[in-house]
Amino acid sequence: MDFITFLGFIAATVTTLSFLPQMIKTWQSKSAKDVSFGTLVSFNIGVFLWLIYGIFLQAWPIILANGVTLFFNLIILWLKIRYR
Amino acid sequence: MDFITFLGFIAATVTTLSFLPQMIKTWQSKSAKDVSFGTLVSFNIGVFLWLIYGIFLQAWPIILANGVTLFFNLIILWLKIRYR
Repeated sequence: MDFITFLGFIAATVTTLSFLPQMIKTWQSKSAKDVSFGTLVSFNIGVFLWLIYGIFLQAWPIILANGVTLFFNLIILWLKIRYR
Repeated sequence: MDFITFLGFIAATVTTLSFLPQMIKTWQSKSAKDVSFGTLVSFNIGVFLWLIYGIFLQAWPIILANGVTLFFNLIILWLKIRYR
């Protein structure tokens, strides 16, 4: 694997795992007042579109990164709705 | 432009603009207690790496989407630090 591809994998891993702290924080504090509902809904829609795009291209890095990102953000959205 | 490329552009536009509501909300409420600092920092680092990746590939959709996303999220991070 060349350096640029490696950089892409690192970028994908970092952005994907970055939503874990928000998920854990919201889960523990049971509060998501300051988290924007509009951002969560539109981000989930956008990541879902990225996932469909990746499936069309059969591009596994796009599928994997966006699949996991969607999973985390759907949980954050669910917590936001639950604790509003 | 074929359908799959069009879908990619829509996905990039939706995920990029999705951070606007969070930025406006935090700006207006002057509160970001529930927004995870760890998520903001790691997401900004990840998006910066995506930007570098796009520059190496000279891929304008990646550069543009991640450049704007980084701009929005650096402002959200700055607001988070300011109003903590």
